[in-house]
Amino acid sequence: MAQEAVLFANEAFYRAFAERDIAAMEQVWAQAAPVACIHPGWSPVVGRERVLASWRAILGGPGAPPITCVDAAAHVLGDAAFVICIERIPAVELVATNCFVREDDTWRMVHHHASGMARGAPEPEQDEPDSGSGLLH
Amino acid sequence: MAQEAVLFANEAFYRAFAERDIAAMEQVWAQAAPVACIHPGWSPVVGRERVLASWRAILGGPGAPPITCVDAAAHVLGDAAFVICIERIPAVELVATNCFVREDDTWRMVHHHASGMARGAPEPEQDEPDSGSGLLH
Repeated sequence: MAQEAVLFANEAFYRAFAERDIAAMEQVWAQAAPVACIHPGWSPVVGRERVLASWRAILGGPGAPPITCVDAAAHVLGDAAFVICIERIPAVELVATNCFVREDDTWRMVHHHASGMARGAPEPEQDEPDSGSGLLH
Repeated sequence: MAQEAVLFANEAFYRAFAERDIAAMEQVWAQAAPVACIHPGWSPVVGRERVLASWRAILGGPGAPPITCVDAAAHVLGDAAFVICIERIPAVELVATNCFVREDDTWRMVHHHASGMARGAPEPEQDEPDSGSGLLH
């Protein structure tokens, strides 16, 4: 089932991240499709070589945090898909959008966008988020 | 060309946003495909009704900011696509990932994820982002 295969690819990304496995990270990302990456607080990094260079810098650096992914939900759109999930890093939770494409019957990442969640952020269950929360939009 | 059509759909989203046009915003979002939205600092909002409710709250509220979109780049993946762009709001720049799907020959939004950019964030042109910048990943 496509949804499971996409979630499997998403898990492979976080395994490579947590294990600081550059070779596995290179396998995760699409070979042919255009790729991009938005690390928390960064401006976009565009192109496979630059994206992988950013991961080499992060995974090889002293500040690479232990990370786990929870609450992953896959939305499949034909041969593309996006996953929304929560990234747990000690003392902080991030939210991520991960986009995938099917290349040669394998789901590969084409885009990763992670960003911080404010304390008191509206819950997914909530029908009418509070517009007066002071958040931008 | 698909890329231009995707960018046109992306512009329609920001026009609806800037003009606080709820009816136009409802047209922007996919009718059939599963949708989601991550407002800056929020946890994910999932499902068309909840996503549109969040936009009604934001666009109808007193704090809806003027917004312009710049540097939009579309990455087309068959009948799906994602756009990366910068959102300019007075005094702050955000970065956004916008995902689209082709429904009945019209590109419609299935996911919006916007988040802040830190000052001094690495530039897209940079090949080797500084892993020591203190940003999380």
